[in-house]
Amino acid sequence: MSANVPTDICFSFSGLIKRGGETGSHKDGWGIAFYEGKGYRSFHDPVASANSEVAKFIQQYSIKSTQVICHIRKANRGRVCLENTHPFSRELWGQIWSFAHNGQLKGIKKKKLNGYTPVGTTDSEHAFCWILGQLRQAFPTKPKSKIKLRNSVERLCREVAGHGVFNVLMSDAENLYVYCNTKLSWLTRQAPFVEAQLVDADLCVDFKKETAQEDVVTVIATEPLTSNEQWAKMAVGEFSVFRLGEKEFTSVN
Amino acid sequence: MSANVPTDICFSFSGLIKRGGETGSHKDGWGIAFYEGKGYRSFHDPVASANSEVAKFIQQYSIKSTQVICHIRKANRGRVCLENTHPFSRELWGQIWSFAHNGQLKGIKKKKLNGYTPVGTTDSEHAFCWILGQLRQAFPTKPKSKIKLRNSVERLCREVAGHGVFNVLMSDAENLYVYCNTKLSWLTRQAPFVEAQLVDADLCVDFKKETAQEDVVTVIATEPLTSNEQWAKMAVGEFSVFRLGEKEFTSVN
Repeated sequence: MSANVPTDICFSFSGLIKRGGETGSHKDGWGIAFYEGKGYRSFHDPVASANSEVAKFIQQYSIKSTQVICHIRKANRGRVCLENTHPFSRELWGQIWSFAHNGQLKGIKKKKLNGYTPVGTTDSEHAFCWILGQLRQAFPTKPKSKIKLRNSVERLCREVAGHGVFNVLMSDAENLYVYCNTKLSWLTRQAPFVEAQLVDADLCVDFKKETAQEDVVTVIATEPLTSNEQWAKMAVGEFSVFRLGEKEFTSVN
Repeated sequence: MSANVPTDICFSFSGLIKRGGETGSHKDGWGIAFYEGKGYRSFHDPVASANSEVAKFIQQYSIKSTQVICHIRKANRGRVCLENTHPFSRELWGQIWSFAHNGQLKGIKKKKLNGYTPVGTTDSEHAFCWILGQLRQAFPTKPKSKIKLRNSVERLCREVAGHGVFNVLMSDAENLYVYCNTKLSWLTRQAPFVEAQLVDADLCVDFKKETAQEDVVTVIATEPLTSNEQWAKMAVGEFSVFRLGEKEFTSVN
């Protein structure tokens, strides 16, 4: 999620967590990361999200955030354990970067790391550490040019995607970088707001009652989370950057 | 806490959180970090722990861990916000290091950083980033000698302590490093286990019923958490290392 005002994710989260063991098979742990200003906090659990006590708590407890990344895991590489749950996070230039990935990456572990080392054993965390190491090597301090940074992130994503399936959400606390090479859908909610119905749970919310006129909230997910709204499919090879709820940049290769 | 078997912290936590706004004045946010194998998860809240919904959840939800670091904040340097809550964490050599500090450090921000940059504005996070940067400079890869590493951590702690008050708990996922320059107390629980009564809440627990014969659990706190057990005061200038519940090393300067 990317939003222009701190927004809670309770509704979308209520649908997504069902896919971790109830309406879907991604039952090998889950995690969620919230940005609150420069602050970052994440909640992780190595159990199925549909049965997780931590998930139940998060579902009921409203944390208002301008960027949220949530991931439910289906283990391919790396056993089911806390250190292998996404989103992964690391600090670069005094900002917390976070990363959630869907897919498998062949041969990614041959890529030489530089300053960031995985804690767990997933190909995903290795890819994330490699990207951050490359960024820090290219820019020992934060680049003043947003475009230079974005171009580098795009180039690195495309290089990783050459190793297999790489659908990814990555944030640097300011921007939400999205790369799609098989499947991602997205939706921007803004006035006039309507009622929305979850796909995975018998729950609907009337966003007219929950939002202010100027709110802009974008949600990106592997599969649409609601049944009555117009989700757009991302193109294969699409790299997009969201900021404060708006798609600021997109490039398809 | 340092323990030889995964142990939950619910009892001690129930007392400690009261000190954040109820029985004590450290009401400017709080955080807790759990190590589960190589995995690490932390919970942070920028509100008083005595009134925190996240704290209520943690109090009731048993997370079993061999190392836990918890901190309740009294803001001196740096405003009250999520990014200024301890414990801070960073990855070094593929391990998550975490750090909680009590005290104020004069002039610490003049110390030049190297690879780790604070996200928030506290003197504490600056000290932590400086220590990790120094360690990585001295040891680009993890030193094989535990003694070399421990000596470096001790030297760096003593250097930081020269800037003011530095009571600190720091973990590298394997060892719990403790430096005391004004006030810390500690206690090791092992067989024969007894009943313990919290200082800050009307709660007692009979550890005979909660533990196995071979369990060894050490708790370190600014002030004793229980009223009927023998807590030892750490010496001023004491640097100690705990591992799997046991004090493995101590040095007073």
